[in-house]
Amino acid sequence: MKGIGDDAAILRPPAGHDLVVTTDFSLEGTHFRREWNPADSVGHRCLARGLSDIAAMGAAPLAAFLSLALPANLPQKWVDDFLRGFLALSKRHNLTLAGGDIAQSTSGVLADIIVVGSAPRGKAILRSTARPGDIIYVTGALGASAGTLKELFADGKTNNRMDNHRHFYPEPRLAIARYLREHKLATSMIDISDGLSTDLAHICEESGVGATLNQNLIPVGNNATLELALHGGEDYELLFTARKSARVPVEIAGVPVTEIGWITREKKILITDCKRPAKKLAVRGWEHFARNKKET
Amino acid sequence: MKGIGDDAAILRPPAGHDLVVTTDFSLEGTHFRREWNPADSVGHRCLARGLSDIAAMGAAPLAAFLSLALPANLPQKWVDDFLRGFLALSKRHNLTLAGGDIAQSTSGVLADIIVVGSAPRGKAILRSTARPGDIIYVTGALGASAGTLKELFADGKTNNRMDNHRHFYPEPRLAIARYLREHKLATSMIDISDGLSTDLAHICEESGVGATLNQNLIPVGNNATLELALHGGEDYELLFTARKSARVPVEIAGVPVTEIGWITREKKILITDCKRPAKKLAVRGWEHFARNKKET
Repeated sequence: MKGIGDDAAILRPPAGHDLVVTTDFSLEGTHFRREWNPADSVGHRCLARGLSDIAAMGAAPLAAFLSLALPANLPQKWVDDFLRGFLALSKRHNLTLAGGDIAQSTSGVLADIIVVGSAPRGKAILRSTARPGDIIYVTGALGASAGTLKELFADGKTNNRMDNHRHFYPEPRLAIARYLREHKLATSMIDISDGLSTDLAHICEESGVGATLNQNLIPVGNNATLELALHGGEDYELLFTARKSARVPVEIAGVPVTEIGWITREKKILITDCKRPAKKLAVRGWEHFARNKKET
Repeated sequence: MKGIGDDAAILRPPAGHDLVVTTDFSLEGTHFRREWNPADSVGHRCLARGLSDIAAMGAAPLAAFLSLALPANLPQKWVDDFLRGFLALSKRHNLTLAGGDIAQSTSGVLADIIVVGSAPRGKAILRSTARPGDIIYVTGALGASAGTLKELFADGKTNNRMDNHRHFYPEPRLAIARYLREHKLATSMIDISDGLSTDLAHICEESGVGATLNQNLIPVGNNATLELALHGGEDYELLFTARKSARVPVEIAGVPVTEIGWITREKKILITDCKRPAKKLAVRGWEHFARNKKET
């Protein structure tokens, strides 16, 4: 591969593979705050967003591209720390930073991550292929990232929360995605970046189906609530469906995998406590800071 | 191809081809001003930047991805016009907008364009392969874009300059790039986005060579000066080298192709009027508005 130093990077994807391309902004003020997120966390999260999309396709990452616009007065140390966080995560996944763009920003730090990945031809896992009767699964626990953000909005203190790795250093679930693809377990998949309710709605819409969640089964992060687990964003866990007959392990690559509901023919998204009739689940888009601002 | 609507887009590049990937920011205040650039020009230029990089590799574009962050108070008409300019150019090159990202911006309009292209395996044209004795060529005329910007800085009037298509609607030289690759004419290539002196320096640095320009031969745009032709940016013309023995047409795809100098073993960049000894050419980075501000 030819990388940085030419007008464009040259990649040679594996023979017989499709390419998978994703791009995501990380914008100061919209996706992070410099006061709350240490620079290495911003770098880590920037790349994690792209890798999580690649995981959601059941694909493997090939190369990353980073476009970065920086304010003129930004300390060099911040940039160094950002890149340290970014490169530590890329190194763990044997990923090359193959190119990008650098510009001056007249406002805050602006990053756009592009990740190119590949999957065997026709084997990428889509959102549009869930079928009625399929079981809905989720990896890890939900709401922890939003829980931390809520705490930050309450007192603005970052330091004592740095052990909450799910918010500051989310781990893209590439190993789980690979396992699911290789074992042909998932009928559809998405990553939870906008919140369980919103991302489940994406699967339902694209697949032309509905879903019913069992609220007693939803794995809630230890600083979260059911509300945050249902609607909080940036968990970067995987939400997938599998045939009723599929043998989905309760743990993959060291991460719990939990059954939380089922896909229905009727195009409604419902939630039940298994005692009363199922209710309609509100689908609330996650708006990062905007939404939290309204709440607090 | 699966496009918008999944976590990532799926592309199937032509068999036996390498992939070429490029990414470029277009940031309000850094790369354009909303007062001066009509929205459709901003959309056109955003995509043209990416396509020009693909052309510079001798590649053909496969798909584009657009990440767009918009201020909350931006009129919908501006967005519509931006996309109209973007899509008109993509349509002319049979290019699919395959995905991207949308976010809210807390400052101005922020766009990042990603273009994925392909070239037959090992046939992309690099910056690093110019050889001493090669002849240096440039397409079109230079300095016109910077000339228009200089006029805008002087009086701020956009309307009477909309006929200057090179500034507002630069045409990526994809047809020329394809001709050069198919006829194996170019030994190295780059697009002129940062200015002739800077982009020639990139070729020289990557190839480990020097260059001498004949200043009498440099094609100067009709609202430009030699100074602007040498150092003004955003012309999006192609700068390439060819063997002395190569038969390079004086016009390709309707665009003049002009011989402007030669590659030297000695790693210096010189300019001569062919009357006095060659002088060292100052290599000046193009800094968009920043540089013009200083000048005016």
